[in-house]
Amino acid sequence: MKTLHPTAHLAFVIEMDRLKGVLRKTLLHDGSRLENSAEHSWHLATAVLVCAELANEPIDVTKAVKMALVHDVVEIDSGDIFIYDYAGNKDAAAEKYQRESKAAQRLFGLLPQELGEELRQLWEAYEKMDTPEAKFVYALDRLLPLIANCKNNGHSWKKHGISLDRVIKHNRKIDDGSHVLWDYAEQLIAEGVRQGQLS
Amino acid sequence: MKTLHPTAHLAFVIEMDRLKGVLRKTLLHDGSRLENSAEHSWHLATAVLVCAELANEPIDVTKAVKMALVHDVVEIDSGDIFIYDYAGNKDAAAEKYQRESKAAQRLFGLLPQELGEELRQLWEAYEKMDTPEAKFVYALDRLLPLIANCKNNGHSWKKHGISLDRVIKHNRKIDDGSHVLWDYAEQLIAEGVRQGQLS
Repeated sequence: MKTLHPTAHLAFVIEMDRLKGVLRKTLLHDGSRLENSAEHSWHLATAVLVCAELANEPIDVTKAVKMALVHDVVEIDSGDIFIYDYAGNKDAAAEKYQRESKAAQRLFGLLPQELGEELRQLWEAYEKMDTPEAKFVYALDRLLPLIANCKNNGHSWKKHGISLDRVIKHNRKIDDGSHVLWDYAEQLIAEGVRQGQLS
Repeated sequence: MKTLHPTAHLAFVIEMDRLKGVLRKTLLHDGSRLENSAEHSWHLATAVLVCAELANEPIDVTKAVKMALVHDVVEIDSGDIFIYDYAGNKDAAAEKYQRESKAAQRLFGLLPQELGEELRQLWEAYEKMDTPEAKFVYALDRLLPLIANCKNNGHSWKKHGISLDRVIKHNRKIDDGSHVLWDYAEQLIAEGVRQGQLS
């Protein structure tokens, strides 16, 4: 039996506390404050767990939940980058990927090698969006802030001057992960337009 | 093929946002503010995922991660109850269980029946602490605030006047889930005593 030293595992667990200090652009539903990336990651992992049957293709739920848990941890080093700041801009997207890859190497590198490599690959698959799990996790990762925005009368869209066509463009990938969730998102967006949250 | 309506799934997902507003007694490691139960649940689920091999018995990691994700959602209705307020007090513990059971029924009842029942049973197994997964999740659920307390010079112990023997009594169940983690916890506690964080 191998002797277990928890040092590497716990170094990672302790470092993770910092994700609670990374603020996103989204308000909580009650509008009281900005959401942080740790509680967002919990919300996403839980949403993936309960919504799995809404995915277009059968997914490995365990893999998808793990992916959701670690999808944002690189922000401990790189910070949260607003999707509308890099989407559609190749240089900005490449720079974002560069910074986040370095962060992934450092953070997952804290773990015992095999485990760190498994999680780094899950993070990588999410970035490349090339598995059914990645597509589905991404669908919910986009849907959650959409819901929060609607609960807050379009707060983040108004504050950052995001137009309807950009909202549609950057959210329509929800459809790649789940037609059902994209139907719902389209209803939310239409409601946002009716209520003047989006121009 | 059955038609999927996301209404029940999303009602649950939306309700979950409220867990971000439930405050615990523990400070973040940087001491900046109290932790909330949503980000704690993320931290716990991630810790369970990466520490699974430290469990005394082989565990079903998927089940354990799911359990960690939902272990505190009842606090949306019942609030966070400080462990030192009910541990060792049968009436207080029974009342806590009563309130939380009602909350579990309402919250998991928002979901499609089969799924809601699966998660409610996981929550129940955690409360009863009668599976290897529950024992291991509990070990980390106790260890994380212990680490946070040490990072903050014993903040919560000092503030609430918690003595060394109570800390040992309420944390020694870590040993039931993981001898390795309990070894580490004992070192933390000893260090807390040396530094005057605990009397």
